[in-house]
Amino acid sequence: MRFFSDNAAAAHPKVIEAIERSNRLETAYDGDEWSARLDGAFSELFEREVKALWVSTGTAANCLALAALCPPYRGIFCHRDAHIEVDEAGAPGFFTGGAKLMLLDGPGAKLTPDTIDAAADAIRDDVHQVQPAALSVTNATEYGLVYRAAEVAALGELAKRRGLAFHMDGARFANAVISSGESPADLTWRAGVDALSFGFIKNGGLSAECLILFKTELAEEVAIRRKRAGHLSSKGRMLAAQILALLEDDLWLENARASNAAAQALAEAAPERLIYPVEANEIFLRASDEEAASLRAKGFDFYEWGAGQIRFVTSWDHSAEAVRPLADAIRDL
Amino acid sequence: MRFFSDNAAAAHPKVIEAIERSNRLETAYDGDEWSARLDGAFSELFEREVKALWVSTGTAANCLALAALCPPYRGIFCHRDAHIEVDEAGAPGFFTGGAKLMLLDGPGAKLTPDTIDAAADAIRDDVHQVQPAALSVTNATEYGLVYRAAEVAALGELAKRRGLAFHMDGARFANAVISSGESPADLTWRAGVDALSFGFIKNGGLSAECLILFKTELAEEVAIRRKRAGHLSSKGRMLAAQILALLEDDLWLENARASNAAAQALAEAAPERLIYPVEANEIFLRASDEEAASLRAKGFDFYEWGAGQIRFVTSWDHSAEAVRPLADAIRDL
Amino acid sequence: MRFFSDNAAAAHPKVIEAIERSNRLETAYDGDEWSARLDGAFSELFEREVKALWVSTGTAANCLALAALCPPYRGIFCHRDAHIEVDEAGAPGFFTGGAKLMLLDGPGAKLTPDTIDAAADAIRDDVHQVQPAALSVTNATEYGLVYRAAEVAALGELAKRRGLAFHMDGARFANAVISSGESPADLTWRAGVDALSFGFIKNGGLSAECLILFKTELAEEVAIRRKRAGHLSSKGRMLAAQILALLEDDLWLENARASNAAAQALAEAAPERLIYPVEANEIFLRASDEEAASLRAKGFDFYEWGAGQIRFVTSWDHSAEAVRPLADAIRDL
Amino acid sequence: MRFFSDNAAAAHPKVIEAIERSNRLETAYDGDEWSARLDGAFSELFEREVKALWVSTGTAANCLALAALCPPYRGIFCHRDAHIEVDEAGAPGFFTGGAKLMLLDGPGAKLTPDTIDAAADAIRDDVHQVQPAALSVTNATEYGLVYRAAEVAALGELAKRRGLAFHMDGARFANAVISSGESPADLTWRAGVDALSFGFIKNGGLSAECLILFKTELAEEVAIRRKRAGHLSSKGRMLAAQILALLEDDLWLENARASNAAAQALAEAAPERLIYPVEANEIFLRASDEEAASLRAKGFDFYEWGAGQIRFVTSWDHSAEAVRPLADAIRDL
Repeated sequence: MRFFSDNAAAAHPKVIEAIERSNRLETAYDGDEWSARLDGAFSELFEREVKALWVSTGTAANCLALAALCPPYRGIFCHRDAHIEVDEAGAPGFFTGGAKLMLLDGPGAKLTPDTIDAAADAIRDDVHQVQPAALSVTNATEYGLVYRAAEVAALGELAKRRGLAFHMDGARFANAVISSGESPADLTWRAGVDALSFGFIKNGGLSAECLILFKTELAEEVAIRRKRAGHLSSKGRMLAAQILALLEDDLWLENARASNAAAQALAEAAPERLIYPVEANEIFLRASDEEAASLRAKGFDFYEWGAGQIRFVTSWDHSAEAVRPLADAIRDL
Repeated sequence: MRFFSDNAAAAHPKVIEAIERSNRLETAYDGDEWSARLDGAFSELFEREVKALWVSTGTAANCLALAALCPPYRGIFCHRDAHIEVDEAGAPGFFTGGAKLMLLDGPGAKLTPDTIDAAADAIRDDVHQVQPAALSVTNATEYGLVYRAAEVAALGELAKRRGLAFHMDGARFANAVISSGESPADLTWRAGVDALSFGFIKNGGLSAECLILFKTELAEEVAIRRKRAGHLSSKGRMLAAQILALLEDDLWLENARASNAAAQALAEAAPERLIYPVEANEIFLRASDEEAASLRAKGFDFYEWGAGQIRFVTSWDHSAEAVRPLADAIRDL
Repeated sequence: MRFFSDNAAAAHPKVIEAIERSNRLETAYDGDEWSARLDGAFSELFEREVKALWVSTGTAANCLALAALCPPYRGIFCHRDAHIEVDEAGAPGFFTGGAKLMLLDGPGAKLTPDTIDAAADAIRDDVHQVQPAALSVTNATEYGLVYRAAEVAALGELAKRRGLAFHMDGARFANAVISSGESPADLTWRAGVDALSFGFIKNGGLSAECLILFKTELAEEVAIRRKRAGHLSSKGRMLAAQILALLEDDLWLENARASNAAAQALAEAAPERLIYPVEANEIFLRASDEEAASLRAKGFDFYEWGAGQIRFVTSWDHSAEAVRPLADAIRDL
Repeated sequence: MRFFSDNAAAAHPKVIEAIERSNRLETAYDGDEWSARLDGAFSELFEREVKALWVSTGTAANCLALAALCPPYRGIFCHRDAHIEVDEAGAPGFFTGGAKLMLLDGPGAKLTPDTIDAAADAIRDDVHQVQPAALSVTNATEYGLVYRAAEVAALGELAKRRGLAFHMDGARFANAVISSGESPADLTWRAGVDALSFGFIKNGGLSAECLILFKTELAEEVAIRRKRAGHLSSKGRMLAAQILALLEDDLWLENARASNAAAQALAEAAPERLIYPVEANEIFLRASDEEAASLRAKGFDFYEWGAGQIRFVTSWDHSAEAVRPLADAIRDL
């Protein structure tokens, strides 16, 4: 059983079916009927008007948003372990034209207003030092922690106070929604978020993510930047169709509920080994090399995460039941 | 019946089936078994070692290639009507970091060595004027003409003589292969081409194009740039699977044969109206506003292409038979 | 005698004296007393509040302005022979992050509203084609023609109507002011210009140009971009001092009057040879190879400008008297 | 007396004289006789063939070098307090097209091979993480420490071993040469340095720095990038003349000897207060707010440098004698 990452899982059968159903001659790019329904579908979900643009990767969603929110000569506060810093090959520098990621610390890849305030205060207000223009957080974080709505709102207030645009990388936004029990609206725009990278690929999708703009006036610029970055697919209907399939009957929530539950089952197997509380679908455990080897010997695959640490990620097609063999193996260590 | 563009057609059923079959847990990105087979499959097709990287749009394929072939401070010769100049939202400027497209003229969007030589000779060799570093041609061209292998080779010789890298936008490469009856190898690397954007989406694919590097030493850089541009899909297997499905049993050639044949059927309906010879799957006709309106009244959709000109594009799912109603309507004008 | 370019001439002695006088310990960058006086001095000259930032080259002035006026994903209308297109090594692409120069035709490197309207109308309003955001003209033009205030105003109206920012490359602005007899204000902001690259180096300065922002709200961004491009000199006082020296007692006008007069003297020597009317300090003449050679044999240096054409540029340290030997030689051809 | 920074001092009288002497009609840009002498002068100084290009700021020298040494999609190791990171407004991101500064720690802004090795080892070798391509150090450092030739050589060996290009920011290179008593060659190319930003403005120059390329094959590209960044001054002779004046009779060494000696005099006034050893011309002292205020009350100006720390920088026109009043005041605290 492989627990490397949720981004390697199969897509949900309904997603594949949706692709099949949308496979017919239609207006190219985003001129088709499925794409046309996205704004409405997400506006309903978020309880306000939003603009929604499909893209094919999370990196594209994140970096198109950042490019619209931060000019080339300014900076973006983010966590030192943020995906945009660590795992996107410098894409933010490429999309923004050289804006600076301003790296902050915080346990579990979470930021707090205090950390950001301290960093911002340390920047001299002159033309020699890069001034910040934006803030980006990941929810759930790269270590599987979840910002609650109140925490996001505290960051949103800081962003407003300091004139920073506010982006959320929601590669695992579904997991955060399930974990917090809070609404998509409360976790985002009501808390001050301007743009959300709404992830579907790690949650049952095949190749579609959605960039949600609460600052709807950015939609025109982002649409141009999407084309300019080679991300305006000719047969975009197949991207929109995937997203709509996951929204239908709250399939996206059902999927996230499953992966979160599977993660909880693993967490309960060895609470004393947990490096972070398990709030979404990632589990970081302390384990010796021998212990890791013994798990592998039983057929479980996962990442080493620095010395003595291992990471498991559960997927939409897992469940507490499905991961019981791994839970047992962990318990037996 | 809609003849706007081949990029709006449905994908071939075998492509959809391939996506379904590849829909299972696998190593993410391009670590899967389908992606692993691409280099080999294209090396066989091109009769030499090549590197093959899937991407999800032609713009991405073109501009990743150009960025690897031309530094930011140099220029790229291309036709004034080239897709990279006219229809990619300035993507070459974005991907290359500001390299200059150097626009050339020529009937039917075709370039000749003489045109390029004249333009290159007119550039002062100093640091004040941008010096060219690359040449990009489209085959089949934006007006449906086809460069024969000998023509490509003449351009390749010029490129070599002048130290220019040579890129081919092959969004409709399949149509050019069928039309010329010449081999993929003869139309590309044997004629001096360094990188080919091998199009599948306009020929039965759904969301996969392939960038073919004959200059294989560029593969590492291009792979990084692909990631950095947000084009490294997590579940890349579905892109590779599409491409392999189209290569299998020469389905890509079968598809192009069908669209070329449909185009010929239309061309023969009104040879005196043709603005360009029909060599691939695009037909440009002279037609008055009234004539265009009468075709629309009969249920045919197509683009106006400047005053008194209309464009039809045929697709892989057309045939001489299938387009007979349009052919008849044109004949009846 | 050398007539290659006014940018190769000596600096005016008063400019050198000003550098000497400013050579003392002062606050670095633009914190000195000379730099502090620029906004006021130019606000007086232009009869309204402006922001004035020194830079050390015309390319820097032009491209900092363009970067502030045009986002990376849009375009800038300019003449095909504009300095920014032909002689700045692609600097606009570098500073703007890949914006597109949209090249227009017009005799003597002059643009008219009709030309621009036609070009703008030909651009499809979608995300596939780059949309224009700015207009840049050169006054006096690269061929020594002068836009009168009314002509600039017609362009300004077009710019306003189409939502284009309006930049003027005034490398030889002084010559245009003298030639037109119109005020700096009438030739710029009253006619709709947003930013002016005010040239001094070709008019007696040594290493200082001034970027004048009529859209004063751009000053903060431009100041940051200036630093970011390595153009914020530590001892900026020496740049400001040069500019102030040239403004003092209208020395800049006196200098331009001299070079314009010298150019007129040359123009009158062979009116039948003139390719363009001589309105500033550049003279383009028809001359055979033999004639050009005979002038060189007499000790005059100048550029060939295409087949059968030669270019002379007069300088601030010329006069009708000083160029008489050349005028005579031309007359004698 | 002001001790804010050596970059605010007057230029040396011989530099001003050189500007005057070079003020005559000459070939523009770098076609003049002074510019032509630079390669030779520096080749002699460095005991091997080098290419030398004047620019007008240290930021330009640093970032042109970095752009030539590091592609947009790679990274540059430097100290967290390096000028390129802290004081250049993000210029490296602009010039390189978005390359990443990879920040390292080390006392006094000095790097060691161990620190770099540890950081490099922590980077996963895949396309998701930015891979390093270059190393940049400052000598003397931003805290006035000096790398000895052996230390540079150790870094050079690391760079070679890891395939990193090696840049040295020598804004205060003269002070490092005097302090170490080692030759320019030993401190640079013999120790593996590929490019040096050779500073003159902080050492008696007015507006000229020199980029020295030991990797001479980069000269063509750097010359183009210089133009493209708006740094190719029309009357470049005045930049070359300044540099030659400072090289003549080792004036640059005499100047650095003076500022270093002045710094030593200050250091000896309160050795117990020193935060770093004083090896060049910067002095960082512990001082309470009251102590700092008392110094200001006596007419000395300087920067606060964090809580309880103050910084003095001495200049070429200082001497042990000249700074005695400040030395006495420090001693009296």
